[in-house]
Amino acid sequence: MTNSTLANSEQRTKKNVSIIPLGGLGEFGLNMMVYETEDDIIVIDTGFMLPNADMPGVDLIFPDIHYLVERKEKVRGILLTHGHEDHIGALFYVLRQLDVPVYGTQLTLAIASGRLREYNVLGKAQLNTIAPGDTVELGDFSAEFIHVTHSIPDSVAVALRTPIGVIVHTGDFKFDATPIDGKLSDIQTLARLGSEGVQLLVSDSTNAERLGQTPSERSIYDTIDNIFQRTEQKLFLCTFSSSLHRIQQFIDLANIHRRLIAVSGRSLINNVRTASELGYLNLNPDYLIDARDASMFKPHEVVILSTGSQGEPRSAMSLMALDNHPFLKVEQGDTVVISARIIPGNEKAIGNVVNHLIRRGAKIYHERNANVHVSGHGSTEDLKLMLNLLQPKFFMPMHGEYQNLVRHAELAESVGIPSDNIKVAEDGELIRLTPETCEVFGREGRSGRVLVDGKPEIELEDIVLRDRIQLSEEGILVPIVVLHSDTGDSNQQSAVSSQQEDIVTDKTLATTTQSTDSQQPTADNSSKTGLNAGQIEIISRGFVYMDKSEELIEEAKEITRNVIENLSDEQKHETETVQDEVRGALRRFFSKQMQRSPLIFPVVMRV
Amino acid sequence: MTNSTLANSEQRTKKNVSIIPLGGLGEFGLNMMVYETEDDIIVIDTGFMLPNADMPGVDLIFPDIHYLVERKEKVRGILLTHGHEDHIGALFYVLRQLDVPVYGTQLTLAIASGRLREYNVLGKAQLNTIAPGDTVELGDFSAEFIHVTHSIPDSVAVALRTPIGVIVHTGDFKFDATPIDGKLSDIQTLARLGSEGVQLLVSDSTNAERLGQTPSERSIYDTIDNIFQRTEQKLFLCTFSSSLHRIQQFIDLANIHRRLIAVSGRSLINNVRTASELGYLNLNPDYLIDARDASMFKPHEVVILSTGSQGEPRSAMSLMALDNHPFLKVEQGDTVVISARIIPGNEKAIGNVVNHLIRRGAKIYHERNANVHVSGHGSTEDLKLMLNLLQPKFFMPMHGEYQNLVRHAELAESVGIPSDNIKVAEDGELIRLTPETCEVFGREGRSGRVLVDGKPEIELEDIVLRDRIQLSEEGILVPIVVLHSDTGDSNQQSAVSSQQEDIVTDKTLATTTQSTDSQQPTADNSSKTGLNAGQIEIISRGFVYMDKSEELIEEAKEITRNVIENLSDEQKHETETVQDEVRGALRRFFSKQMQRSPLIFPVVMRV
Repeated sequence: MTNSTLANSEQRTKKNVSIIPLGGLGEFGLNMMVYETEDDIIVIDTGFMLPNADMPGVDLIFPDIHYLVERKEKVRGILLTHGHEDHIGALFYVLRQLDVPVYGTQLTLAIASGRLREYNVLGKAQLNTIAPGDTVELGDFSAEFIHVTHSIPDSVAVALRTPIGVIVHTGDFKFDATPIDGKLSDIQTLARLGSEGVQLLVSDSTNAERLGQTPSERSIYDTIDNIFQRTEQKLFLCTFSSSLHRIQQFIDLANIHRRLIAVSGRSLINNVRTASELGYLNLNPDYLIDARDASMFKPHEVVILSTGSQGEPRSAMSLMALDNHPFLKVEQGDTVVISARIIPGNEKAIGNVVNHLIRRGAKIYHERNANVHVSGHGSTEDLKLMLNLLQPKFFMPMHGEYQNLVRHAELAESVGIPSDNIKVAEDGELIRLTPETCEVFGREGRSGRVLVDGKPEIELEDIVLRDRIQLSEEGILVPIVVLHSDTGDSNQQSAVSSQQEDIVTDKTLATTTQSTDSQQPTADNSSKTGLNAGQIEIISRGFVYMDKSEELIEEAKEITRNVIENLSDEQKHETETVQDEVRGALRRFFSKQMQRSPLIFPVVMRV
Repeated sequence: MTNSTLANSEQRTKKNVSIIPLGGLGEFGLNMMVYETEDDIIVIDTGFMLPNADMPGVDLIFPDIHYLVERKEKVRGILLTHGHEDHIGALFYVLRQLDVPVYGTQLTLAIASGRLREYNVLGKAQLNTIAPGDTVELGDFSAEFIHVTHSIPDSVAVALRTPIGVIVHTGDFKFDATPIDGKLSDIQTLARLGSEGVQLLVSDSTNAERLGQTPSERSIYDTIDNIFQRTEQKLFLCTFSSSLHRIQQFIDLANIHRRLIAVSGRSLINNVRTASELGYLNLNPDYLIDARDASMFKPHEVVILSTGSQGEPRSAMSLMALDNHPFLKVEQGDTVVISARIIPGNEKAIGNVVNHLIRRGAKIYHERNANVHVSGHGSTEDLKLMLNLLQPKFFMPMHGEYQNLVRHAELAESVGIPSDNIKVAEDGELIRLTPETCEVFGREGRSGRVLVDGKPEIELEDIVLRDRIQLSEEGILVPIVVLHSDTGDSNQQSAVSSQQEDIVTDKTLATTTQSTDSQQPTADNSSKTGLNAGQIEIISRGFVYMDKSEELIEEAKEITRNVIENLSDEQKHETETVQDEVRGALRRFFSKQMQRSPLIFPVVMRV
């Protein structure tokens, strides 16, 4: 630390620091942490999250950043710890709303730039490349970047010097003693910080439930080598496009076993190109072939690197499993290695892909039956080592579901951090750090998640998502009622009748009935005109198979007609009343007849 | 074997046996196997399956039993191997369509009777209790029941003597050397059958991917004992209602640790009662309390047995996690043990429950962090032992996804079954067994799955399910067009206009517009009356938040109006044409504006 920053530190000593997790504390993904003093805000990471199966039609989830937008003049910068989407994937979304400088290592910014370009925010983005060891001054904060090992190169932790002491924010990390790129976690700097005194450690809890130390990335090498040796036909190696250490090992083994390398999948192609150009991948371009040409070589002459490890429906791997890929084919004697974590929630999708690949005669290796994957996140002993190196006064676990955070808190207690000094916080809580205390002192009302559908993205309101879930479980039913003014020509009835055949066009969807209204219009001399139910139609989707349910629907129409006829003329003029009465009657009918409750949404048309 | 059955066997030697898996070969659950000769059919097991998250609104899945219904006069009986729902859950559904005798052990039939009673088929059901060792003659088949160990007592394998030799159908099994009820798998009978010669073995593949031997059910006892010792407040033990060996251990430990036992969950209460009455559970009723009274005792005086291990939303465990249970409460210092398999696909739901329970201060044990669950299915060494005991000529794996069946086939090959004699078949295939061959010789077209929604159950057509999935991903949009005959009174327009405010009743759902049709009706003297677009309304659900999308919807209405105005009078009379044109135009509009494709279902009303 230079003298000037020391002096600066002294000026700040009377201030507090607020910490506001906008994402990643209570879930995996969506990582985003805000550190704030009276005058300044910095943000570490801007991640997104992919939706679960219980969020139909949601494509992406972003943290809600109202907190930052409302304080945009205070935000001094965004620091990125590494190039994984759960840490950088929301950057374009944030930069659209905040015009602030971004700091990250060369590889991290290179990967982030791809999406910024795609969403047209690269031009205005202020990207600042930093290297491990660099320090950046950002108002009340001074951020030092510390190299850590993870499944992607160029990952850093951040040591924040603040008015009330040092906060270390680990990002994702493990202690890999034999990293593929030879670059160790910077234990020396961490130890030095520990000696000098750390006020707060905020640390990765992803693997807090896994006992022991996470093995080195290198530990899978022999297994993959063995698979290369045993595979006589094509070999498919499937991993995340960002797992560059894994990809380096695949490349090295392909060279040893004299297989040409084909790369499939847009993100993988981009990352391999970017990482090669920047020197993060050691790849001889002479051994690279276009995946379209793979079939021109003998099966044992090629290895195909591919994405799709999570069974994503449009991925190369899923397409190949169904024999729908335009130029890649999995055949008898081929081997497929899924060298990635089977993420909870994706097991069914991955299982389906695996079943289909086996049907095509492929041999499949995945983390459940072979040592083909190792995590990039530290297990209990890595986490304890981080705690022991830094010996923080206060501790706050991040990155994980609540159970992981609690487990990490237990680990901290086991290495001697007093339980009162450990704060298990969740998204949207406001934590205040003073020289003597670290306390949750409130909630930020506007925190939460932004659900995004489609591209260009549309923010989905909760109500739309709730509707989708109810639609998917029960279907929808739309009764349409035409109310005729008394003044109308009664010949209209026959016109409707003559059209009946036309209206029933899509047998699975709609049935209709003509008006069988035998009542004479009642004379009505009040200020409102009398109204009578004319045509009644009921459409539905996702509820029952209409072809087989004609009787049911006819009955529902009769109920609708009766409801309307029993209304007073006054009530018939109140659309809301008509809707409520029809909805109520049909709800009771379907509930009694079928124990079912479709969404019922009556429409009243007047002529 | 008696002399009479031997003689019987000789008569049959010229016949073949067909094997038709109706469920359970290619998935977990839905287990149902048909064995058929020229004259006779027998069925082993009638299981159901619970749906995945990708089948919204589906409550149950049954095998398609058209094959049996079309041959109902040949069906001699249904044999049940044990009382798990994936083996007996579809019995009521099958018995509604087939009036045939059912054979099962005492406990199996007692459990099955519950659902039969619920669905009003118990009265007509012909239930025949058998015991291990019994033999039943069913036309060309003679079925001998053989005790096997599994997670539920009274489980059996079936040895079928057929015209062309013995088929052994294992059901679910493991070789537990120290079963809780002291009843070993009947290795002696299996060995004897092996010596005499087995033509075909059909064996459980559930755990074919797990190395080694499945530990004894007893192996979890010490861990649970330890948890009892360490728990100072309430203890919740959560398992499947059918895991009676597990429940016996819980009861024994509750007695040792002097805790009273409260049972929560309808199926668990029923099974505990049934099994106690029949002597399959050793339970002193004096130690049983009503779960409603649990709060009257001190926390350390009670243990609560509960269902909900899979995070089912309406289960006691889920309700407690959200503090919504009417009388049970999880509090600081309580312990919850999830003593069950975390079934793939349920991980997210279970994780959510666990997170909430931890938030309430409970300590949680589950199979990932403690030895609190052991499988009831044999692993590789159990499966090899079964193969070696029986030394079958032919082998066919059952119960599992394709990958499990293939893995089991590999195991069979590893113990010396020639690969040509191993048949990996799937649901709906017809396998023919002769003295010399075992071959797939066709497919049964009508096999498949029946998706059931609600109660009383309604069969869901695929099209309804597809609609639901599309509804959930994209939402629905219903444009409603009123076409006026030319003869109509133009004053109708103002009537519609005056109602506009009424029609917009539910802001999130509907917007409407009055007709702004400024064109004069064109004179039309053709045989058809001229039609003009009057009121146009667009409703949608699950698509966009209507409140924020007024402009978009207004634009969509204008497009609809333009489409109709550009149609010829002839076309306007063709409802299908109007629908197609409106659907096409709106589809293009939303695709271009939003890259979205909601279900669009136009309705045309004529007055």
